[in-house]
Amino acid sequence: MIDKNNISMSVIRRLPIYYRYLTELENNGVNKISSKELSAKMGTTASQVRQDFSYFGGFGQQGYGYVVSQLRMTIADILGVRKKRKCILVGAGNLGHALLSIDFAELGFDLIGLFDANSQIIGTEHMGLKIMNYSVIKQFCDENKPVMAIICTPDSVVEKVSDDLCSYGIKAFWNFSHYDISRRHPEAYVENVRINDSLMTICYMLDD
Amino acid sequence: MIDKNNISMSVIRRLPIYYRYLTELENNGVNKISSKELSAKMGTTASQVRQDFSYFGGFGQQGYGYVVSQLRMTIADILGVRKKRKCILVGAGNLGHALLSIDFAELGFDLIGLFDANSQIIGTEHMGLKIMNYSVIKQFCDENKPVMAIICTPDSVVEKVSDDLCSYGIKAFWNFSHYDISRRHPEAYVENVRINDSLMTICYMLDD
Repeated sequence: MIDKNNISMSVIRRLPIYYRYLTELENNGVNKISSKELSAKMGTTASQVRQDFSYFGGFGQQGYGYVVSQLRMTIADILGVRKKRKCILVGAGNLGHALLSIDFAELGFDLIGLFDANSQIIGTEHMGLKIMNYSVIKQFCDENKPVMAIICTPDSVVEKVSDDLCSYGIKAFWNFSHYDISRRHPEAYVENVRINDSLMTICYMLDD
Repeated sequence: MIDKNNISMSVIRRLPIYYRYLTELENNGVNKISSKELSAKMGTTASQVRQDFSYFGGFGQQGYGYVVSQLRMTIADILGVRKKRKCILVGAGNLGHALLSIDFAELGFDLIGLFDANSQIIGTEHMGLKIMNYSVIKQFCDENKPVMAIICTPDSVVEKVSDDLCSYGIKAFWNFSHYDISRRHPEAYVENVRINDSLMTICYMLDD
């Protein structure tokens, strides 16, 4: 089987992109694609595509190309998107709310709980889920065993929230705060989405 | 002066992180910091910090460290966050709405216009700005000359929207869609925020 530890992050980060393109191709009724065509879509080279896939057993035949549906399924399984892991969202303010429109099931997750500490929004329902009081989160995790938490709280509370959640069995964080969860919890996998940093990068790149 | 073209993206991407840490230090009343302390906060090495800063003229003195307020200002100017470039947001649905809570001024931008094609939200006011009809965007750009556009529309309309905006003088995009604007408009700077891809990466990293 695949040894995930031998694969570099840059290859891993291309997998969702392959997956997205293949889904698009399948939806458009395309049956077969060559590594050259796929690489053109990805803005990379055919040899890069072949090398990426070689890490996962090198599906596809020389000179024939890849069967889109098959390649898509293989990548889905490598990513694990059909596993539907349970996740929760903590901090259901503006940003947290916006994230509810994501198709979690399509991306490998089952969003089973929303939490906040603001009494004005606790109890309100969104996408079929009621926002629960943060005070019941331990009991919820004990009973439902989510493995991933989406953090949309203010930075100031993330230290406590991440300590709590790690002790309740959370293994991974999708972190929208600027608090450095990895530094405090190196045992967890943390994916940071630092949109402010990305905005400042544009600022740098703009020339006047 | 600094030749931006000689600096790698990985150095550029660390600048907002330095800036964030330095702002935090300044807010906490810290006056001086060594490259060693700064690197510990960044999860990197002191020599990396010194090397990064050497691209920008290597401020700081051997054995003395950096004056926090001065270093912060220098990085602010390298990033250009005090320039307050004009920007607009296209697609004011859930995600677009959530982005309005960002402190744009702090990050180098002045958000001057919101646009959507949905008549149900056109005319409603958010953070002091009324959502305008997309049909008036050309006139707005002619009069106000924004240089950056935040794209929160459905993927299917981004080809047209990016064509329009490039022809109206937009130089950079903060792209929350999955449409590949760079491929169509290599002349523009595009910063992609692909939150779905980041979610799938967590999926991959979780072991069962």
